[in-house]
Amino acid sequence: MDTVVIVGAGMTKFEKSPRSLRALAGEAVTAALDHAGLDAAVLDAAYVGNGAAGLVTGQEMIRGQVMLRPLGIEGIPIFNIENACASSSSALHLGWQAVAAGMHDVVLCLGAEKLTHEDKSVGMAAIGTAVDIEAQAEMAETLGAGADSAKRSFFMDIYAGLARSYMELSGATKEHFAQVVVKNQHNGARNARAQYGAELSVADVLNSRTIIDPLTLLMCSPISDGAAAVVLMSEREASRQGLGGPRIRASIVVSGNRHDKSDPSAGSGGRAARAAYEQAGLGPEDLDCAEVHDASAPAELIVYEQLGLAPPGGGPELIASGATALDGRLPVNTSGGLLSKGHPIGATGIAQICEATWQLREEAGDRQVDGARVALAQNGGGWLDEDSAAMSVHILTAD
Amino acid sequence: MDTVVIVGAGMTKFEKSPRSLRALAGEAVTAALDHAGLDAAVLDAAYVGNGAAGLVTGQEMIRGQVMLRPLGIEGIPIFNIENACASSSSALHLGWQAVAAGMHDVVLCLGAEKLTHEDKSVGMAAIGTAVDIEAQAEMAETLGAGADSAKRSFFMDIYAGLARSYMELSGATKEHFAQVVVKNQHNGARNARAQYGAELSVADVLNSRTIIDPLTLLMCSPISDGAAAVVLMSEREASRQGLGGPRIRASIVVSGNRHDKSDPSAGSGGRAARAAYEQAGLGPEDLDCAEVHDASAPAELIVYEQLGLAPPGGGPELIASGATALDGRLPVNTSGGLLSKGHPIGATGIAQICEATWQLREEAGDRQVDGARVALAQNGGGWLDEDSAAMSVHILTAD
Repeated sequence: MDTVVIVGAGMTKFEKSPRSLRALAGEAVTAALDHAGLDAAVLDAAYVGNGAAGLVTGQEMIRGQVMLRPLGIEGIPIFNIENACASSSSALHLGWQAVAAGMHDVVLCLGAEKLTHEDKSVGMAAIGTAVDIEAQAEMAETLGAGADSAKRSFFMDIYAGLARSYMELSGATKEHFAQVVVKNQHNGARNARAQYGAELSVADVLNSRTIIDPLTLLMCSPISDGAAAVVLMSEREASRQGLGGPRIRASIVVSGNRHDKSDPSAGSGGRAARAAYEQAGLGPEDLDCAEVHDASAPAELIVYEQLGLAPPGGGPELIASGATALDGRLPVNTSGGLLSKGHPIGATGIAQICEATWQLREEAGDRQVDGARVALAQNGGGWLDEDSAAMSVHILTAD
Repeated sequence: MDTVVIVGAGMTKFEKSPRSLRALAGEAVTAALDHAGLDAAVLDAAYVGNGAAGLVTGQEMIRGQVMLRPLGIEGIPIFNIENACASSSSALHLGWQAVAAGMHDVVLCLGAEKLTHEDKSVGMAAIGTAVDIEAQAEMAETLGAGADSAKRSFFMDIYAGLARSYMELSGATKEHFAQVVVKNQHNGARNARAQYGAELSVADVLNSRTIIDPLTLLMCSPISDGAAAVVLMSEREASRQGLGGPRIRASIVVSGNRHDKSDPSAGSGGRAARAAYEQAGLGPEDLDCAEVHDASAPAELIVYEQLGLAPPGGGPELIASGATALDGRLPVNTSGGLLSKGHPIGATGIAQICEATWQLREEAGDRQVDGARVALAQNGGGWLDEDSAAMSVHILTAD
């Protein structure tokens, strides 16, 4: 297995954008190639993650080819990968695999998503397909609600249910959830590519509109458009070309499984983390920073435990201690996370990798973690039988 | 790179089916595992190709997880791969790559598609997204046609245009196209899993309803539902378990590129074939049988030339000679091909591999090619700038 180097990373600003999916993708790809100092002609293959284009723009089947053709990227193998909100980390894994296996020297991994639509319900309905739609329709019928209304609120229902269970298990309060938002919005305010970002108080977060108890509006990631891309190269080829960049030390994707819900480490998040630490030969104590899937604020605390950053039930104490703040011992979501940076679902996984890359290259500007050498990115997607349908963990080192 | 063995293959009958996508997928996966004599619990990962579920059934994002969960296949990495009509050959390539790289010992590759819908236009419209939908909408506007009507007939327009160009280049006639149909329907009549199959005359084909000149109804592949699956294992592990099966000697996926249209070998089909022969260390003269992407009858003749089975312009002579008939020198589409077996788009690529596997294991019954040792499968998907958007060629040997 060859070691794989991230020689370039680029992304658009995440925002509600009037631009097309291919325009967003084009900007991210061009930025990643420019970052590496490479021309598109050197690419051997491309792995493209997108979750919702079929339902939002009507483009299915050959999304990557359509996005990449205007950049002159054609002829090479192009794979379209879908795993809901973990689509682009899944694309990254498959690109990493091809380079690590020695099948390709240099590949592009892209995540792109256009969720805003003139009809606001379209993006929400598309996200709602990241579950078993037949089971969900049955559930909606049982509840006496229409399938469409269930679809729109289903994910926030899931997150709220998780939050309530977690409060019981760990003693977390709404204040702890609000502390996550305060931290991530603070970080996002230092990231020009973040959709939001502000200096908020816990009270500001608690006083924002209630979506579903215990979640307030600011505890939920927004609807966003955007794209993110990385260029991967074998260490041998990078060395030959005089290129540097972070090394991928672990690349894990798993699917969810039915498991004991009273143990936050038993599901896909814990399994993916353990597999990643084993593959990297590193542990939670080695991390200098992490990007995690805070689709809702409580999720960040749950993920702390899944990743072994805190002991079981220790999530609330970890956020309260300030350890995961930008100036803490282990800054988490320095980019602003999904809550502040935004969550264009198919782009999120590689956007996390962009942040990790910039941190490890000391290019993160106002949010740079001093001397960051080891970074982790955790990205979940979809929902099935009370677990994420797909879960990815990547671990990178500076060199 | 490890050699990869196809230890099991299974598929449903292709037909217009009242059954759900997950029921079809479940039957194919169970058949493939049974063929290998393996339990689902041994699978390390799954690669799932589907083209249209988002637009036909509404299920996007986590299609593979939803299809596989009822079989108890969960927890492992599951990747959802889309490349239009080449979705499952792309999934096969990625599964092959993982085993060849030594990352997994045993993986499942699945293609499944449900195209029939109570509203007949839904399946056709979904297939219509295998092009650049923005460019196509512009073209429809230029032509003064509605985008929807263009969407429904766009692929047959493409095939008819290709057929007319090919007639000019090669001197092919409608009779040559009809001979392809007669051959493939004859083969399909010997395949219990084929949607159609009959002993037809050239006149029967020419007298069927004209779709778009020169294409008649019987020259076009039908709308179908179905699923096909294979189980891949490293040669080392297969040997340890005493399992046999065909070896994958070449697995190539490329995307289309802009090229000289007067040379049928310059596009994705020719490039994929040349790369596959090089990877396998074999040539067209070594093949004992082949499954090719006859989405329309003229396509089979064009593909003969792309694969080097006939010289440039030699497609009509090859079909007329009977060399590609079941009792000929190099039988092509012994399964019946897309024209007779059916074309549930995301399932087609792996269905071709199932037929190749059965031929190489001498399990093809009434359509067995005596002593078949080397088989090729060619599968194209989507359309962009006058070339297939994705093109795959696999070459298998009996051992």
